[in-house]
Amino acid sequence: MNAIKDSVHDYIGLDALAEDLVDAPEMQRLRHVKQLSTVRLVYPSANHTRFEHSLGVYHLAARALDHLEIDGDRARHVRAAALLHDIGHGPYGHQTEEVIRRRTGAHHDEIGHLLDGTEVAAALVAHGLDPDRVAAIVRGEGELGQLVSGELDVDRMDYLVRDAHHTGVPYGTIDTGRLVRELRYRDGELVLAAGNVQTAESLLLARALMNGTVYRHHVSRIAGAMLERASERLLDAGAVGVDEFRRMADHDLLVALRDHVPDLGRRIERRDLYKRAVWQPLAGVPADVVEMDYEAARAAAAEIADAAGVDPDDVLVDVPARPRFTESRTRVVVDGAVRRLEEASELVTGLRAAERTQWRLGVYAPAAATDNVRDAATEVLGLAETRSGTGE
Amino acid sequence: MNAIKDSVHDYIGLDALAEDLVDAPEMQRLRHVKQLSTVRLVYPSANHTRFEHSLGVYHLAARALDHLEIDGDRARHVRAAALLHDIGHGPYGHQTEEVIRRRTGAHHDEIGHLLDGTEVAAALVAHGLDPDRVAAIVRGEGELGQLVSGELDVDRMDYLVRDAHHTGVPYGTIDTGRLVRELRYRDGELVLAAGNVQTAESLLLARALMNGTVYRHHVSRIAGAMLERASERLLDAGAVGVDEFRRMADHDLLVALRDHVPDLGRRIERRDLYKRAVWQPLAGVPADVVEMDYEAARAAAAEIADAAGVDPDDVLVDVPARPRFTESRTRVVVDGAVRRLEEASELVTGLRAAERTQWRLGVYAPAAATDNVRDAATEVLGLAETRSGTGE
Amino acid sequence: MNAIKDSVHDYIGLDALAEDLVDAPEMQRLRHVKQLSTVRLVYPSANHTRFEHSLGVYHLAARALDHLEIDGDRARHVRAAALLHDIGHGPYGHQTEEVIRRRTGAHHDEIGHLLDGTEVAAALVAHGLDPDRVAAIVRGEGELGQLVSGELDVDRMDYLVRDAHHTGVPYGTIDTGRLVRELRYRDGELVLAAGNVQTAESLLLARALMNGTVYRHHVSRIAGAMLERASERLLDAGAVGVDEFRRMADHDLLVALRDHVPDLGRRIERRDLYKRAVWQPLAGVPADVVEMDYEAARAAAAEIADAAGVDPDDVLVDVPARPRFTESRTRVVVDGAVRRLEEASELVTGLRAAERTQWRLGVYAPAAATDNVRDAATEVLGLAETRSGTGE
Amino acid sequence: MNAIKDSVHDYIGLDALAEDLVDAPEMQRLRHVKQLSTVRLVYPSANHTRFEHSLGVYHLAARALDHLEIDGDRARHVRAAALLHDIGHGPYGHQTEEVIRRRTGAHHDEIGHLLDGTEVAAALVAHGLDPDRVAAIVRGEGELGQLVSGELDVDRMDYLVRDAHHTGVPYGTIDTGRLVRELRYRDGELVLAAGNVQTAESLLLARALMNGTVYRHHVSRIAGAMLERASERLLDAGAVGVDEFRRMADHDLLVALRDHVPDLGRRIERRDLYKRAVWQPLAGVPADVVEMDYEAARAAAAEIADAAGVDPDDVLVDVPARPRFTESRTRVVVDGAVRRLEEASELVTGLRAAERTQWRLGVYAPAAATDNVRDAATEVLGLAETRSGTGE
Repeated sequence: MNAIKDSVHDYIGLDALAEDLVDAPEMQRLRHVKQLSTVRLVYPSANHTRFEHSLGVYHLAARALDHLEIDGDRARHVRAAALLHDIGHGPYGHQTEEVIRRRTGAHHDEIGHLLDGTEVAAALVAHGLDPDRVAAIVRGEGELGQLVSGELDVDRMDYLVRDAHHTGVPYGTIDTGRLVRELRYRDGELVLAAGNVQTAESLLLARALMNGTVYRHHVSRIAGAMLERASERLLDAGAVGVDEFRRMADHDLLVALRDHVPDLGRRIERRDLYKRAVWQPLAGVPADVVEMDYEAARAAAAEIADAAGVDPDDVLVDVPARPRFTESRTRVVVDGAVRRLEEASELVTGLRAAERTQWRLGVYAPAAATDNVRDAATEVLGLAETRSGTGE
Repeated sequence: MNAIKDSVHDYIGLDALAEDLVDAPEMQRLRHVKQLSTVRLVYPSANHTRFEHSLGVYHLAARALDHLEIDGDRARHVRAAALLHDIGHGPYGHQTEEVIRRRTGAHHDEIGHLLDGTEVAAALVAHGLDPDRVAAIVRGEGELGQLVSGELDVDRMDYLVRDAHHTGVPYGTIDTGRLVRELRYRDGELVLAAGNVQTAESLLLARALMNGTVYRHHVSRIAGAMLERASERLLDAGAVGVDEFRRMADHDLLVALRDHVPDLGRRIERRDLYKRAVWQPLAGVPADVVEMDYEAARAAAAEIADAAGVDPDDVLVDVPARPRFTESRTRVVVDGAVRRLEEASELVTGLRAAERTQWRLGVYAPAAATDNVRDAATEVLGLAETRSGTGE
Repeated sequence: MNAIKDSVHDYIGLDALAEDLVDAPEMQRLRHVKQLSTVRLVYPSANHTRFEHSLGVYHLAARALDHLEIDGDRARHVRAAALLHDIGHGPYGHQTEEVIRRRTGAHHDEIGHLLDGTEVAAALVAHGLDPDRVAAIVRGEGELGQLVSGELDVDRMDYLVRDAHHTGVPYGTIDTGRLVRELRYRDGELVLAAGNVQTAESLLLARALMNGTVYRHHVSRIAGAMLERASERLLDAGAVGVDEFRRMADHDLLVALRDHVPDLGRRIERRDLYKRAVWQPLAGVPADVVEMDYEAARAAAAEIADAAGVDPDDVLVDVPARPRFTESRTRVVVDGAVRRLEEASELVTGLRAAERTQWRLGVYAPAAATDNVRDAATEVLGLAETRSGTGE
Repeated sequence: MNAIKDSVHDYIGLDALAEDLVDAPEMQRLRHVKQLSTVRLVYPSANHTRFEHSLGVYHLAARALDHLEIDGDRARHVRAAALLHDIGHGPYGHQTEEVIRRRTGAHHDEIGHLLDGTEVAAALVAHGLDPDRVAAIVRGEGELGQLVSGELDVDRMDYLVRDAHHTGVPYGTIDTGRLVRELRYRDGELVLAAGNVQTAESLLLARALMNGTVYRHHVSRIAGAMLERASERLLDAGAVGVDEFRRMADHDLLVALRDHVPDLGRRIERRDLYKRAVWQPLAGVPADVVEMDYEAARAAAAEIADAAGVDPDDVLVDVPARPRFTESRTRVVVDGAVRRLEEASELVTGLRAAERTQWRLGVYAPAAATDNVRDAATEVLGLAETRSGTGE
């Protein structure tokens, strides 16, 4: 068995199928898609890619299957799905996900049609696997799908430790060794064995701390909002089509933006970012603003720009989704019965409240325009007592 | 400046005073007192000592003082206090703390009288420091005392990362680099600068996860209860006096127990431990049992032993204190004002509830006697629906 | 002081000048130049950039200056030089260095003229520094230049630990904490204090092990040779000029190669690499081949291609330079006198011989052509008993 | 399968036999025997024990056996031998090894007779294993014995990484993942597969660097010499017999020395160590002194003490064995043939010479007596130009 050295899991042994899949262009492309997209503008060491993350997810899936004593054909489909689970990501990963979804309706875990005619699909078939079944597992369907995409999936386990390792932030540290050992199936549901309420809580806590410190850092959010707007303009201008767009890698997008949307493209490349004009907690934001979709937020941004007397592209309105806590539905065995973590743990309520506290509406603009834009945004969005950019 | 290599903080530079203090027998004794006493029976790598922990606390104190721009005489007293803060610990650290307190009334951080006539005191005086002032800082008194013993002290910062490093458990990981950088004084109170609610929460979370996984692991609690009983018997029998006892190191106590309390002494040495006869959550324990002090618990153990027809030393009743959350009173700057973390963070409420959920009354006995002892304990203590030893 | 989180050195505090320098486009460009260029095709985690490396070199320089008690103006010039030392690197770092040198005569550490008119130079001047003096330090000139570019420079210290951290290979581990503490100046020469022969040897050993395992891994060498040829063709074709070329970042070059040299460009992007037709130790290679420069090697490749009946671009002849051991000239104090490590250490001789043993002539070609190319190369280059690609 | 958390290898899964063996008093005793005995007086974090090391060796043996595809009865004997390989160690491990050997003729790896009548032997038999066969493997006999005690044994692999981890020294870092993957049997000999000359060299280099920095640090050697002398006196005085002595754990010996050899015992406990009166390289030591055995060295010490006018116990003469390089006989496949590393690697010669350079004769005495003792030792031992204690 060939093995690849990984800085997180040490050697990752590849079976024959995995070796063929890894060589396919669809997987090689992930070498050029960074795992944390704009987070690297805050944490300069965070340059890891979806390629190595995919290997890590494959590795943890293989270990979990061993402990669950699942082998043969079922295990091979899960391992393949683990390796391929991210090939549907566009350039800059999550930052372009909504751009693609708005134009194609497709989420990144819907990889079925992406497999058509690819070397990846050919490799699967050559090794006797069913591409549709693999795609279903990637979507989280069925008993086995929970291992790859669910509350207790190995995707989450890998990215938390990997993102912590590469940012240098000590908060994503979970005990993957214990997690893969304590997985069980109960009535077709993936659960943690008895004695693991705290193991489950630790997943939730790791995510919560990483959210605040890394994933939702305001600098990364600003760059992400700039990237999303620039991508929209790139597509609006017809410079590239969405099918080409979603198959781009990071370097393709960076060059395309610089060529076709130079104002924002150059700024992103040089980390010459907009600043926070507004950074407002939930309590000070009208409900209709909290519920705005992208189109509404872009229209509001245009209105604010108009009121502030600046170019429409100088204002970005960033309305994050209300926090979801997938992990809070994790199933754990307590006193012999399977329970949701949110029922078994008092911590979940506290974490939910804490997440609401951290929610922020962002309005961003070039440094020189932030004062004007703040005033205009307060007016247009109906914000209570506008907060400046340096709030907690 | 001489430097000592530490596996957690890399090189720790010692000033001239620290070099002299480290050479004193009172500090060298800490080489023979393990940081986590009986936890090493669960986590075999956790053999680190209070000596290296003391060096770590000294190191973090020095870095915090640098960032706080405190130097000169005040800084020297704090650094000395950081280095010496644990010399009042008896053998096996926290496990004998209550034994000593019951007989002397002294807590381990009251080191004042311990300094009389020691080489440590001589070194302090020789370097122009006041031993009483150092002792006051160790007790947490005054503005500077908060750095060594308080909600944001460097003691806590060192032990969380050190205990995580040596057990191998990934949960104690806090960002000490950030914590020492973000400390401020506001009106004489040590606080975290604005933007650090989550930094403060991370301390709390790290402690909560370490509590469940490490500090209160049932195997460590059982061994600790055996050690406490054996120590009581050693002192009851007059084999050693309490003054000698508190100055013992781990090896002295281990040999003394084997010689004078051989039944328990040999069991501790060989990790031939009692088992859980009862492991009962808070809800199933009458309030008067929850509030029992050591004498009451020992009397109850004797009564249970009598009812179960076993030797009085075959039953241990272990009633942990209700959880305190020192860290929840951490002060953080939020919106320009100093606030207690418990007011600023919704998480604290959740954590408090979670800690209550984890509380367990333990009754321990030799493996062969656990069934009898469980029945007797249920009766004597008035427990509701007794739980066996394997509960969550 | 602002601080950046680094996964290797934890927090790196930036002084005001460093903050301004980091924001300049010349430094931001290094975010897009990977430290180990084609090594990431072997070690997928090795995606770290020259940006974070530059911060690390700055950090170690600052610590070394503290220990050497150098401050004020001299220290500020050294720290600036440490931060800027890599801005002269072209895309893919060392892999294009020779391409640029052949056309401009300039080595990457000659940054003087690159500073003209840049934001970097403006920032230096604004903070009262002399750009020419900074450039001289980067070239290794003067007493202080040795700290940034010499046998004991902080550049080497950073890259060895950083490359080990990111590849996951455990061999680059040196004791940077000790190295920066043990630096001394003796008669204007940077030396290691007495007691550090082995500290110096450890640098040499770390490099030797990293050379074999990482830096000269055959897959990285093949990809590097392909990249060099493709870059030559890009420049030969006039698609870009050398001034534009050297200012490119990795993503620019990757896109330019795909657009203008698509055969090699796509192969590099997709890791569809040539294979070894010849992998020959020093003993089996005629002296004139060992001494070939790039032009001669390219001519030989054309001749081999002709003899093998394949396209000229299907053959790459890769003649590595004879190994140099900069570190073997490290100065160490032994018995009170300053000595070169090669005089003080018997290990150096052994390492030199070991490096000769590891030297390999490589001839690479598409997989289908390797047999033909091997025969042709053996003939054309006059190789003794040609070795296949799998030899030690 | 039960698993133990280890700070080096993460979870170590124990089979049923291993669980029983671990519970036996002979294994539990290793919790009280530190891996690096007196090294912890230099590196305060190095408190790890032979217990956790034994678990690590068991773990690596199990992984190596998996890769070698050895299972069933043979594998079970190897795993048991790996776990038990250190039960023959006396207190303070290697520091008392020669004391025991001089009085019993037995080396620590001769555990056969130690098994008689033990719980360990009973457990082996109960699980269908042959204690004699296990003991033979521990002695390194047969094909399988090489895995546990030989040039490529898993003992060495574990202690290098474990000692590095716990001292904090970055030099013992070897690639255990690669080593266990690349083991092969060729004609009954354990070898490394082709392509691993450097892997083998890295083992040698790690040992060489750890020797100089850790294992042979002068402070550890001084404390070790004091401990050996004190142990000899303890046994000479008949306070304990050698059979009891060798079964002691560290705490037993520390207390016994303090009680029966109080001058040295208290010094060791308090790290109040002798200093170097002589620290002489090989070139300045007459051949007959280099070849001295312990008795001769102790007689010389007495003669020196007499000449210096000090107490005989105030002089220790420490003549280390000439360095052996077990690892240099490692077998590696090169060009299809099995070769010794010393034949395949030019580095071995250099390392041997480097080790000779590091060899030092030590003569130690209380600080106040070092000048007198140096003069007397120079005379008595016939040393050329005596060197003081601070030489390289």
